[in-house]
Amino acid sequence: MVIDGCPAGITIDIEKIQVDLIRRKPGQSVLTTARKEDDLCEILSGVFEGITTGAPIAILIKNKDARSHDYSHIADRYRPSHADYTYQEKYGIRDYRGGGRTSARITAGWVAAGALAKQMINQLGIQSKAYVSQVGKIQISRAYSANELHIEEENDLRCPDEASSKKMIALIKKVKKEGDTIGGIVTGIISGVPVGLGEPVFNKLHAQLGMAMLSINAVKGFDYGSGFSGVELKGSEHNDIFENTAHGVRTKTNHSGGIQGGVSNGQDIYYRVAFKPVATIMKEQDSIDTKGAKVTVQGKGRHDPCVVPRAVPIVEAMAALVMADFVLLNQSTKLSL
Amino acid sequence: MVIDGCPAGITIDIEKIQVDLIRRKPGQSVLTTARKEDDLCEILSGVFEGITTGAPIAILIKNKDARSHDYSHIADRYRPSHADYTYQEKYGIRDYRGGGRTSARITAGWVAAGALAKQMINQLGIQSKAYVSQVGKIQISRAYSANELHIEEENDLRCPDEASSKKMIALIKKVKKEGDTIGGIVTGIISGVPVGLGEPVFNKLHAQLGMAMLSINAVKGFDYGSGFSGVELKGSEHNDIFENTAHGVRTKTNHSGGIQGGVSNGQDIYYRVAFKPVATIMKEQDSIDTKGAKVTVQGKGRHDPCVVPRAVPIVEAMAALVMADFVLLNQSTKLSL
Amino acid sequence: MVIDGCPAGITIDIEKIQVDLIRRKPGQSVLTTARKEDDLCEILSGVFEGITTGAPIAILIKNKDARSHDYSHIADRYRPSHADYTYQEKYGIRDYRGGGRTSARITAGWVAAGALAKQMINQLGIQSKAYVSQVGKIQISRAYSANELHIEEENDLRCPDEASSKKMIALIKKVKKEGDTIGGIVTGIISGVPVGLGEPVFNKLHAQLGMAMLSINAVKGFDYGSGFSGVELKGSEHNDIFENTAHGVRTKTNHSGGIQGGVSNGQDIYYRVAFKPVATIMKEQDSIDTKGAKVTVQGKGRHDPCVVPRAVPIVEAMAALVMADFVLLNQSTKLSL
Amino acid sequence: MVIDGCPAGITIDIEKIQVDLIRRKPGQSVLTTARKEDDLCEILSGVFEGITTGAPIAILIKNKDARSHDYSHIADRYRPSHADYTYQEKYGIRDYRGGGRTSARITAGWVAAGALAKQMINQLGIQSKAYVSQVGKIQISRAYSANELHIEEENDLRCPDEASSKKMIALIKKVKKEGDTIGGIVTGIISGVPVGLGEPVFNKLHAQLGMAMLSINAVKGFDYGSGFSGVELKGSEHNDIFENTAHGVRTKTNHSGGIQGGVSNGQDIYYRVAFKPVATIMKEQDSIDTKGAKVTVQGKGRHDPCVVPRAVPIVEAMAALVMADFVLLNQSTKLSL
Repeated sequence: MVIDGCPAGITIDIEKIQVDLIRRKPGQSVLTTARKEDDLCEILSGVFEGITTGAPIAILIKNKDARSHDYSHIADRYRPSHADYTYQEKYGIRDYRGGGRTSARITAGWVAAGALAKQMINQLGIQSKAYVSQVGKIQISRAYSANELHIEEENDLRCPDEASSKKMIALIKKVKKEGDTIGGIVTGIISGVPVGLGEPVFNKLHAQLGMAMLSINAVKGFDYGSGFSGVELKGSEHNDIFENTAHGVRTKTNHSGGIQGGVSNGQDIYYRVAFKPVATIMKEQDSIDTKGAKVTVQGKGRHDPCVVPRAVPIVEAMAALVMADFVLLNQSTKLSL
Repeated sequence: MVIDGCPAGITIDIEKIQVDLIRRKPGQSVLTTARKEDDLCEILSGVFEGITTGAPIAILIKNKDARSHDYSHIADRYRPSHADYTYQEKYGIRDYRGGGRTSARITAGWVAAGALAKQMINQLGIQSKAYVSQVGKIQISRAYSANELHIEEENDLRCPDEASSKKMIALIKKVKKEGDTIGGIVTGIISGVPVGLGEPVFNKLHAQLGMAMLSINAVKGFDYGSGFSGVELKGSEHNDIFENTAHGVRTKTNHSGGIQGGVSNGQDIYYRVAFKPVATIMKEQDSIDTKGAKVTVQGKGRHDPCVVPRAVPIVEAMAALVMADFVLLNQSTKLSL
Repeated sequence: MVIDGCPAGITIDIEKIQVDLIRRKPGQSVLTTARKEDDLCEILSGVFEGITTGAPIAILIKNKDARSHDYSHIADRYRPSHADYTYQEKYGIRDYRGGGRTSARITAGWVAAGALAKQMINQLGIQSKAYVSQVGKIQISRAYSANELHIEEENDLRCPDEASSKKMIALIKKVKKEGDTIGGIVTGIISGVPVGLGEPVFNKLHAQLGMAMLSINAVKGFDYGSGFSGVELKGSEHNDIFENTAHGVRTKTNHSGGIQGGVSNGQDIYYRVAFKPVATIMKEQDSIDTKGAKVTVQGKGRHDPCVVPRAVPIVEAMAALVMADFVLLNQSTKLSL
Repeated sequence: MVIDGCPAGITIDIEKIQVDLIRRKPGQSVLTTARKEDDLCEILSGVFEGITTGAPIAILIKNKDARSHDYSHIADRYRPSHADYTYQEKYGIRDYRGGGRTSARITAGWVAAGALAKQMINQLGIQSKAYVSQVGKIQISRAYSANELHIEEENDLRCPDEASSKKMIALIKKVKKEGDTIGGIVTGIISGVPVGLGEPVFNKLHAQLGMAMLSINAVKGFDYGSGFSGVELKGSEHNDIFENTAHGVRTKTNHSGGIQGGVSNGQDIYYRVAFKPVATIMKEQDSIDTKGAKVTVQGKGRHDPCVVPRAVPIVEAMAALVMADFVLLNQSTKLSL
């Protein structure tokens, strides 16, 4: 994977990339614990003696068990709610091995790139964090601002509310036993954002953030600030009143979600990302093959019963990449003499 | 406004652009009826004898009462939940006249461009339609597929469900009387889509659609297909089973919302767009001025109590533009000999 | 015409735009003198009280005699060495009025945009200048660095060498009398460039500069520094030796043309742009019509016998736009804290 | 190296990529003969069973002796007419190993990508060829159209004129003995081009072609068709007369170089690319170190005395990539129903 456009002079700690890659790894959620693997990734270019040089940064992520799985059972049949059918129709040819382009393995690269972006925006005091806020119908009850996010990592589910978390885990275990899967929601928070990031019309901060989230496999929706629930409010309830405090200009409430007119206003940016249930289930389902004949398909191998715990670092990474882009873009807003 | 990249040879009916511009015009919803104004827009280039030439299409939309309003009251103060503050901070200078870049007048250009895009995609059998599905807490109860969308235009609110519509109108009238505003949801449907539009990874159909919608002023959220409610389902409930019918490959259900792996599967694409309540209210609100001193602000002139009826043609237009882009992009998927 | 991406806070003098537009105007070269017309252009957006706001800058250039010429004689026949044939074949339709997209009138917009870019880069001490260095076989004998460029504007031909200039004017008059046209070369100089502008691989300063020049109508070639004549030198003759002077790092010679590895090295950037003879001549020529039948064509109206004097402000403008882009791009090379 | 946007369904022969990589390899010119190495490159993605899938095509080129050279002598000193100084100043940091980003090794990737592009455009009957037309002051005397290009590969210098070639080789040997280097010109020809490729204004075929050529290391100039020598002609001499022949519309002459108004007219596209003498010479030269102190530098290892023979496949590759882009871009010119 290659990251282009990273400015020179940023100190990079490869350990931090490895940590996020481990957080994303399959087999981390619910049932297993994280193992540290030292050789998970390697930086091939763009970093010299620990500092970025301005050159493209190539990162190699070794895929130890690539192609070891058997995918021949999907070579000639379309899995329900997968992209087998649409890609075959679009291109007339499909490399089915490893799930091909539809595979969520691509998010490993995004997580690595995001780990770099985090180190860049951290230098400016910006943090990108996320947590699980819903699994099935079980929702975390607290507002985003009430959570202590450091707790989130100590929790198998990456949910900062212990009570909700237990119910969610129980639900996932039950669903898994049934050979089924379940959806969920990840909430993200970007804090420490300076005023002025984002562009006014075609490149609004929340529009790029939404596009980045909707690019993640299995995502069905995105909202920020008051979001979908904000439609129920009146203007007098929803408007965020400005006040001048000892710490600078603030808003009393934050229904705007830290963004006004596409541009950051210095308050926390918070948003939700909806993930559908994983399409691969262990139950037998009807489908058709590439010739249109009726067949059945059934998942094989180890698949996640619920993707949201592993999605947490992916969401964080995508948000960090968006913020890094806006930081650089904003540097051309004024002429530097 | 200039539309670049429109292919040559498409028949353009300027009347259809005018109709959509009128649908978007202020003063159409709830209280007034649409008037037809013949000279609303003019095509300056790119169309010759009614046919596109492949050259950029410049459309001039006359703004008859531009700058007639008095905006001096916002020159030195920040309206709550507007972009006055963020733009001033970002650029260090702000053209406050007419609301400046933050003004939703830009959507007139988008509607005109969208009306062109509609004519292009219509040639391929693709339709972009939208309707109001929620105002405040009042939701239309029917699924997207149960509506007769031609009815929507006969209705003041652009809501195809007469019963819900009456309640919504009553709510808007009440809110307006209070000098307040209310949010709502627009549901969009893109039908007649061929299989294969959209790109697999960074340019997924729904990611671009979401970005387009999130670019519209006052939008706080986007989802498609099962969307946020889909997170509550199990994989076995959510998966759309393929079947081979006399009319080609179909899915029994359409939780996927017509898109799988970022690429259209031939079923209807449907999606929701959440609009916050309009920020300009007729009530007095606290705020600060550009020097940080406490002031009050109050809306002047005629402002919409609820933006969603006028947002319907904007949503349709943005969706049509996205689809037009993907149609053209898809033409490079295979080599034409 | 709309210029996007101009940073906020730059003082704009509209007079300077007008001056360059007049320098480009038809009827300035050889036979007529420049007239000042006050209402040549109008800034519609992006400049507030004389200062850029960061919003797109729309400039309207009134075309007083647009479409007054009769172009019906080219509606169905292809002028030799014009783009009538290629555009008709490409699009299957062609708006022949005013020469359509092939018209060099588009360069008026580029000159206006360039006049803005000049004001931006001038703030950084960068100057974009050009002059006529060859007409037909008559070449200016001096090196770029030996000219006093302020003299160039006092000269009908925009050539800073009085002796060469006289011969060039005589040649153009002779060619004009024959109903013919003649080519020429414009030499450009960008001075005051800081070290570090340009990108190393795909966006080299000279590659973008070359592309910009090759985008100008009638241009057939571009070289910079030692250019085509540099191929005759040995490395030991061509290499520019660095030396550390009281004024900073310099090179003893400047065969590199101010650019090394695609990035400016602080020395003058100089380059040549080759213009073919104008294709429209007053002589009768054979050609074919749109159905392939043999016809003759002959130029009508007033056409330049030699385009290079008017091309001088166009070349300057394109160079200024390229430099403005690289200045802004370079601002993202390092992270601004 | 990753090639994005290649359409699906194109048959790829990896052998052809290898052949071009070998043509570009150091040590092929003048003194040595080409060796066939089977494992020169490997396709990692985007090609399935020999056919492109529409996915990005990653090609791995093994660099067997990477970093084996000693570059420590340039860590703290600036080589004359190299990019050491400009990159150090631009980024404040420089990875000097292997010459860093300034290294011409990047052209191996371009040649591989170009070999793919050639296979794509060959399917449409388009050929991209090049040959050496000048070394120092020794020019090939024939016009581009008089050469038999198959001969070019049998010749150590890739020059199709045996007589000129012998003189060029003698010159290079002499220069090499002196520890010096010499420049040269590569002429390229793109034949079999359909009418209509290229865009009219900002994306003219020759402007992109020029930009691509100017992106190659050591290139100082580009012209096409009549080029710089065309400025000496009159319009009546330069204009290419259309005629309708049994083989379709042709032009009697081809001063236009196959492009009119930025768009291909079906005739051969021919162009020249000027290469300066290689900057690394075996003679001692004055320079400065990174602290500004006076030092001397001298080339080490094996460096080309003249780059043009090896540049031939690079020029061909860049041209093929440009043509592949325009083929795809042109597919969106009209709407495919």
